[in-house]
Amino acid sequence: MSYLDERDLAFLLYDWLDAERLTRHPRFAEHSRETFDAVLDVSAKLAASRFATHYKKADQNEPVLDGETVRVIPEIKQALTAAAEMGLFASDFASEVGGLQLPKLVQTASMAHFMAANIATAAYVMLTTANARLLCAFGTPAQIETFALPQIEGRWLGTMCLSEPQAGSSLADITTRAVPDGADALGPRYRLSGSKMWISGGDQNISENIVHLVLAKIPDASGALLPGVGGISLFAVPKILPDGTRNDIAVAGLNHKMGYRGTTNCLLNFGEGTRHRPAGAAGAIGYRIGEAGSGLALMFQMMNEARISVGLGAAALAVRGYRQSLGYARERPQGRPLIGESKDPAAKQRPIIEHADVRRMLLAQKSYAEGALALILYCAELIDQETTATTPQEQARATALLGLLTPVAKSWPSEFGLAANDLAIQIHGGYGYTRDFDVEQIYRDNRLNPIHEGTHGIQAIDLLGRKILRDREQALELLEAKIEQTAAKAENDARLADLAVRLREGWAEARATIAVLASLDDPAQALINASVFLSGFGHVVVAWLWLDQACAVTAKLDEQDSFARGKLRACRCFFEAELPKAQQQFAFVASLNTTAGLMPLDEF
Amino acid sequence: MSYLDERDLAFLLYDWLDAERLTRHPRFAEHSRETFDAVLDVSAKLAASRFATHYKKADQNEPVLDGETVRVIPEIKQALTAAAEMGLFASDFASEVGGLQLPKLVQTASMAHFMAANIATAAYVMLTTANARLLCAFGTPAQIETFALPQIEGRWLGTMCLSEPQAGSSLADITTRAVPDGADALGPRYRLSGSKMWISGGDQNISENIVHLVLAKIPDASGALLPGVGGISLFAVPKILPDGTRNDIAVAGLNHKMGYRGTTNCLLNFGEGTRHRPAGAAGAIGYRIGEAGSGLALMFQMMNEARISVGLGAAALAVRGYRQSLGYARERPQGRPLIGESKDPAAKQRPIIEHADVRRMLLAQKSYAEGALALILYCAELIDQETTATTPQEQARATALLGLLTPVAKSWPSEFGLAANDLAIQIHGGYGYTRDFDVEQIYRDNRLNPIHEGTHGIQAIDLLGRKILRDREQALELLEAKIEQTAAKAENDARLADLAVRLREGWAEARATIAVLASLDDPAQALINASVFLSGFGHVVVAWLWLDQACAVTAKLDEQDSFARGKLRACRCFFEAELPKAQQQFAFVASLNTTAGLMPLDEF
Repeated sequence: MSYLDERDLAFLLYDWLDAERLTRHPRFAEHSRETFDAVLDVSAKLAASRFATHYKKADQNEPVLDGETVRVIPEIKQALTAAAEMGLFASDFASEVGGLQLPKLVQTASMAHFMAANIATAAYVMLTTANARLLCAFGTPAQIETFALPQIEGRWLGTMCLSEPQAGSSLADITTRAVPDGADALGPRYRLSGSKMWISGGDQNISENIVHLVLAKIPDASGALLPGVGGISLFAVPKILPDGTRNDIAVAGLNHKMGYRGTTNCLLNFGEGTRHRPAGAAGAIGYRIGEAGSGLALMFQMMNEARISVGLGAAALAVRGYRQSLGYARERPQGRPLIGESKDPAAKQRPIIEHADVRRMLLAQKSYAEGALALILYCAELIDQETTATTPQEQARATALLGLLTPVAKSWPSEFGLAANDLAIQIHGGYGYTRDFDVEQIYRDNRLNPIHEGTHGIQAIDLLGRKILRDREQALELLEAKIEQTAAKAENDARLADLAVRLREGWAEARATIAVLASLDDPAQALINASVFLSGFGHVVVAWLWLDQACAVTAKLDEQDSFARGKLRACRCFFEAELPKAQQQFAFVASLNTTAGLMPLDEF
Repeated sequence: MSYLDERDLAFLLYDWLDAERLTRHPRFAEHSRETFDAVLDVSAKLAASRFATHYKKADQNEPVLDGETVRVIPEIKQALTAAAEMGLFASDFASEVGGLQLPKLVQTASMAHFMAANIATAAYVMLTTANARLLCAFGTPAQIETFALPQIEGRWLGTMCLSEPQAGSSLADITTRAVPDGADALGPRYRLSGSKMWISGGDQNISENIVHLVLAKIPDASGALLPGVGGISLFAVPKILPDGTRNDIAVAGLNHKMGYRGTTNCLLNFGEGTRHRPAGAAGAIGYRIGEAGSGLALMFQMMNEARISVGLGAAALAVRGYRQSLGYARERPQGRPLIGESKDPAAKQRPIIEHADVRRMLLAQKSYAEGALALILYCAELIDQETTATTPQEQARATALLGLLTPVAKSWPSEFGLAANDLAIQIHGGYGYTRDFDVEQIYRDNRLNPIHEGTHGIQAIDLLGRKILRDREQALELLEAKIEQTAAKAENDARLADLAVRLREGWAEARATIAVLASLDDPAQALINASVFLSGFGHVVVAWLWLDQACAVTAKLDEQDSFARGKLRACRCFFEAELPKAQQQFAFVASLNTTAGLMPLDEF
């Protein structure tokens, strides 16, 4: 079985986002709908045959730290090897670096299959490709050749090393040091020392080598580290050095997680100098990528990609949970519906999907899951617009809109994908609470998503503080134009006209709230309820994308098609049951409420 | 440490619910505030020293089915033995049956300590005392002596056997048969055969014996079972028969749960006749309790008690999660707050409680957790009112109000206690996602609560269909009078007057929604969005209890006391951030929306 709805994926790609249009651009000219479909088909099959098959086994058999190395179940390596063979690691890279030059949109849809089937195994692909992409963007040809290419082939895997035990969300406070150590063909060489926490894939027995991309600070002449983010530089630090010797990196511990267990998660000590002393000295050897002091700015490319991937994973798990609970609800007989059927106790029990409350929970899941997936694919298509833009202005618009939507793409699917998974458990009743079914694990796996790659609170400040208020609402104007375009399409369709009105109202409430916040003297005061704003703003964005999907349905599909009617109903459900929540949230934010945000600490 | 806030517990018991008043009633005349406090003090200490100590061990070492018997870690037996020695099983029973005759209110507060410390171990106490209480209410003196007394002593443990694999929420469809088998001193004897699913404590190696209370149907002369709930009778079926032989009950399997793992959960086969053949024949021997055909009605006493206990457990876990995340937030330095402090990156990092968003998540937890606990203690006090009523009318009023509030007491803490636990994880960041901290387990344990003892959907139909619409809003009038009483108190206090207005508005919206639903021709149509109604109604009830608590604060506590100010702030937060959600839910229900509830099945 496929863990995604392939009909919906095809609708989103072709009927809604017009993926075929991309093949007219030289970058994608080698491709066609046929090659796209072939990739998606292979992805669905491989996800089912190699990734889903060890979904529970990886949960039940956590990675173990075996003295020196972290060991995972062998099925993970087998799955990743098969994925490398199909070119999954290479799919959207340029052909000069061995890539298949697929559009980001198609690569994203392909990844969705793997994430739905086994998010913890798919995470290795996600991290590795994001790592390689950063290297391709900012590395020297020698650095790309040495560190990126083996990752694009899928022979090596990659990580991102940002957090430290004392600095999780606050990267300004990292203390890992990078001391100059000469230079060679791979660029300026440094010796790194410090501890990195929460390193997914930080060690494993899957790949020949691991490329760590590490944020660290280069001390000044007095040996001091510059406070703040300005002092941060970026380094490529391989587990195995080009000369084949082990670098000075030790696994200091494994984190034992609620879910997502197939992805190893390590505390790494760089530069301990106890077990491995490359070239006879302590200090992990790393090569600087880009300019000194530009580390955080460069890393943001990887972080932004990872944030959208987090949203993709959350969306994929939401779809999977929806489909599994839908299948269960169609098959599980229990009681008799209050409406439509006889309540005669002698009558046969009916499938629970006939109960109104179960339908409510299913349609809510559909509206969250397909809404989240649409949001992520829309962002992927914006990345393709950056690639295919014919003018710098066009490219800048795509970049600005993507920047505005990135915190939403990270957080909304994480929040509502999880809400969907909670409903999937509830539909299964007691069975959903057991490990005999998948839904409790899906929930546990998905629970990481509102935390990693920047918590909800961090995304909220990014959206409201940086992308809206600091940037003086410029990206917001672009989004407004898109929303208005959708509303204008919808208002001419009798089936959607009322929703166009509601979308405009929702957007007007968002703008009015922003206007209140922008008028404050103290910008920090505007951020007190940023998280509430983020949830409400996310709802308006998803409502817009639902209505835009609905326009594609009415324009392109047959009205009698049950798939088409289901999409229209999910859209309507989102507007009726969900969008009013945003109104309440905007009213709360606009009231500048400080009851919680400024609560005196002694009152807790 | 205590897992509850003992100051809050004392406030709720004495300042708010006036527990000392109960000692004026003959039933509780032996008691005083001193004995109440002594019980609570011992409970807190024993919960910490014997229950909390194996919280993680029981999660990591699930019960195992060892051929015949289910084995649990020895600490569970040690904890329950200590609890029996302090009289925990006996605490609110009458002295004639060996009880300590404590008020339900005090027993509930005492249980809250154990549930917060280790809900899975505490569950054995909850099930056993509810089982014994049913027997005391409806059993013959011999049945009470034989089956209830050893449970009140805590030597035996008890279960409730309702669900079957094909009949979870739909008890009308059970097929366990009870065939008459003569009678003896313990009453009419039957032979039972059938499978019972989800039996918490269904087998274990903790107690000498287990008393199963089993719902089954007595076949008619032709051997057929009466359809519907009318044919259900209730039986006491001990694991070990009075003559010391094993009854015909086999453990057919264990359920492996997401959490709550210390409580064994079994599929039991009654009457297989393969391993145990009491008196040489197949069929589990059981004694009928009460009249034939009255089984479900009798079992509702145990179910109602269990439903309030589920709410208590959810509330206790919410309080624990709140306190643990509060402790973490006070100690974990990370970043610098945007408001009030310098953003100078060279300044020391500050505890995360200084971030507005963390305070928001903490105060939301406080408002959910203490609101839920207040709701449950209010219900416990209604049970004491039933006991101490001086007229049948007074008793009937307490019973009616308790009946109306029971589905809310079951569901609201389950829904919002879980929401609180989710915030507790979020405050811990990545650490909260690891098993090194408690909060992910607290969440997993609590996730059972919206499922067992009747799912949310079942509670919603009970509240709206039975307790409101079928009973023609009689109980609702009682609740309205209570709410009005609180609003009248609050409107005379300048600090609370605006909240009195909002409470009346919220209640008016609830009543208006009910009026719309009551006017429908088809009562089933009124129930389509019953779950949404339940959430909104629960919010109004909790808002009322928050305001009532606030009235006790302003009347009895010093305004400068930070505890008092914290309570007032949590009350205000609930009105400002939460109550508006109910308004949106009532509007949705009153619109008679059928987009989801009547979605055609082919559209999913």
